Amino acid sequence: MTDQTSMRLKALREEMSRENIELIALAPGSHMDWVAGFHPHPDERACLLLIGPEKEAFLMPGLNAEGSRAFTGIAFHCWSDEDGPQAALLQTLEAIGVTAPKAVALDETMRVDFALLLLDSLPAGTPRQFLETTLGKLRMRKDATEYQKLKMNALIADRAMQKAFDVITPGMTENQVATEIKNHFASEQADPQFWIVGAAGNGAFPHHSASESVIKAGDAIVIDIGGRRDGYPSDITRMAIVGEAPDGYDEVHAIVEKAVQAALAAARPGVMAKDVDAAARNVIADAGYGDYFVHRTGHGLGIDGHEPPFITATSEAILDEGMVFSIEPGIYLPGRFGIRLEEIVILRADGPEILSELPRDVKAL
Amino acid sequence: MTDQTSMRLKALREEMSRENIELIALAPGSHMDWVAGFHPHPDERACLLLIGPEKEAFLMPGLNAEGSRAFTGIAFHCWSDEDGPQAALLQTLEAIGVTAPKAVALDETMRVDFALLLLDSLPAGTPRQFLETTLGKLRMRKDATEYQKLKMNALIADRAMQKAFDVITPGMTENQVATEIKNHFASEQADPQFWIVGAAGNGAFPHHSASESVIKAGDAIVIDIGGRRDGYPSDITRMAIVGEAPDGYDEVHAIVEKAVQAALAAARPGVMAKDVDAAARNVIADAGYGDYFVHRTGHGLGIDGHEPPFITATSEAILDEGMVFSIEPGIYLPGRFGIRLEEIVILRADGPEILSELPRDVKAL
Repeated sequence: MTDQTSMRLKALREEMSRENIELIALAPGSHMDWVAGFHPHPDERACLLLIGPEKEAFLMPGLNAEGSRAFTGIAFHCWSDEDGPQAALLQTLEAIGVTAPKAVALDETMRVDFALLLLDSLPAGTPRQFLETTLGKLRMRKDATEYQKLKMNALIADRAMQKAFDVITPGMTENQVATEIKNHFASEQADPQFWIVGAAGNGAFPHHSASESVIKAGDAIVIDIGGRRDGYPSDITRMAIVGEAPDGYDEVHAIVEKAVQAALAAARPGVMAKDVDAAARNVIADAGYGDYFVHRTGHGLGIDGHEPPFITATSEAILDEGMVFSIEPGIYLPGRFGIRLEEIVILRADGPEILSELPRDVKAL
Repeated sequence: MTDQTSMRLKALREEMSRENIELIALAPGSHMDWVAGFHPHPDERACLLLIGPEKEAFLMPGLNAEGSRAFTGIAFHCWSDEDGPQAALLQTLEAIGVTAPKAVALDETMRVDFALLLLDSLPAGTPRQFLETTLGKLRMRKDATEYQKLKMNALIADRAMQKAFDVITPGMTENQVATEIKNHFASEQADPQFWIVGAAGNGAFPHHSASESVIKAGDAIVIDIGGRRDGYPSDITRMAIVGEAPDGYDEVHAIVEKAVQAALAAARPGVMAKDVDAAARNVIADAGYGDYFVHRTGHGLGIDGHEPPFITATSEAILDEGMVFSIEPGIYLPGRFGIRLEEIVILRADGPEILSELPRDVKAL
């Protein structure tokens, strides 16, 4: 077992003990990555990392055993397609000494068929919860290695954004701009993850991706992109204008910028996430655009592109040193344009450090 | 609502009625795609398509509502980050007239947090199952439109495989070959999905991807690739040899080829999936390599790259006209090489039609 896995299991068991949880179940995905440093190929075959108060073991599809062996020293209890997973699951629970836990905490992203296979193998009525207060809590605070990877990815995303600024001309489609962004990520060994290029009215849909819409002079363009290298992601949003800004654009951009600054100023260790959300939201509401800021102010960023802490209007999560999250207020005016500005920050003792080195000014092209 | 959605909902309700199921719950993913023709951005916000005996509606994160509206006429019950999904879920259940269903069938791929949110909102002890006997059953039989898309993707994959054959030379890394394959898929507007290039001993791991291993003269190389265009995937495996085949290769290749042919001959409407598996497996076992064929013979292919019917040693699923699945026996000799040959077929009245037009002979380079 690597030192990292040993340290993280030890920290996790302290949280389990405090919360009276005797079983944690993880599926192939980012929670498993955080503990074990890898995850087997996720598919429809039940694969779980089960962690008890003293021991841990994998329920492993036989097909994945050999390929996974190189990545971990944790024991495998294998099952074949012929036999199905039930018997191997019971063996795994016995091997870690947990057949009737006081409570179980489930990876919330787990497929429900895996989860019910496990829950139906425990005594009926076993209290269950998700990982928020245990593994999720630990994952929020990033260590130095994680910071370095996130910073590296942020600078790659800055250069991909600059590439978009360099190539956009009237007559290009959003998809053509997206292709340039994706190619830039690939040129730096990062896998492109998303590439929102929303010109004019398309930018008013927060989850618009890129389309065959042609970019025209006078369009405001939301560009929200991210890539992934060495297991960690990036996420940044900037605005570009081709030629002359549309009517009312500059005023709304200034309001969003002010909202970003208010959230940056509010984010301190010990503050609740909802107070950071309120700082941004109040600026926008006070300016009369409250109904047009239709999403939360931000989300955590780590192994997952979206993870706790979530910076929402209701989250009482206490922000702490080492947490990494986005601040990304926006105003969306249907049929006209959207404006979103997004920074990824790591919270330091004296406030947020922004990972990007790209200004938030509108880029006039 | 599109004609396709209306037809599929009607067929689904016939299955629900037959199975005494009064509620089906789908999460953003391929089951939702099949019914609604789209799915909203999947993330940690609860999003469900709930289908009752007469009505259907979406539980929808407010953030996704506007962007999803263009794709469906089905009603949305929206929730905001501030309020959480609980109240909107109860509204959705009331709107479709199902608050205490006789039984519920869950999308097995759904996140467990979505599933428990729903199950905890139904009367305790409501019988639950997955979609195998309802939606899953319907999805297995492909219509003419689906066949056309799968055939188009199969021919793109053939050309990507041919591209690999054209470029492989001793001294290249597996990753370099994979890059050529990925670029070929992209050149035909297909998103590359996987690119196994397993030279020599690497080929003996069925789930090996591609690595920095350098290809040498005398290596046998497993190439298993797939892309995705217009919402449907491809999947094909062929073997290449650089120069002279390794000792014993030709004999083992001939056994795997014979296993493919046996499975093709066994696959007929009305036959159980396990009998197709047995046909391939017996050939390999009879030749003395039973312990080296470590996976099932095949899997279905449709909107998902891996979906029912699964061609396993125990599946009693009855094969039927219109089903699309892989036949892909293999023999894996640790430290030496792996051999897998894979065809995707659609089952016709008189037997399987192979989608690929590429021969299965070993390609000597």
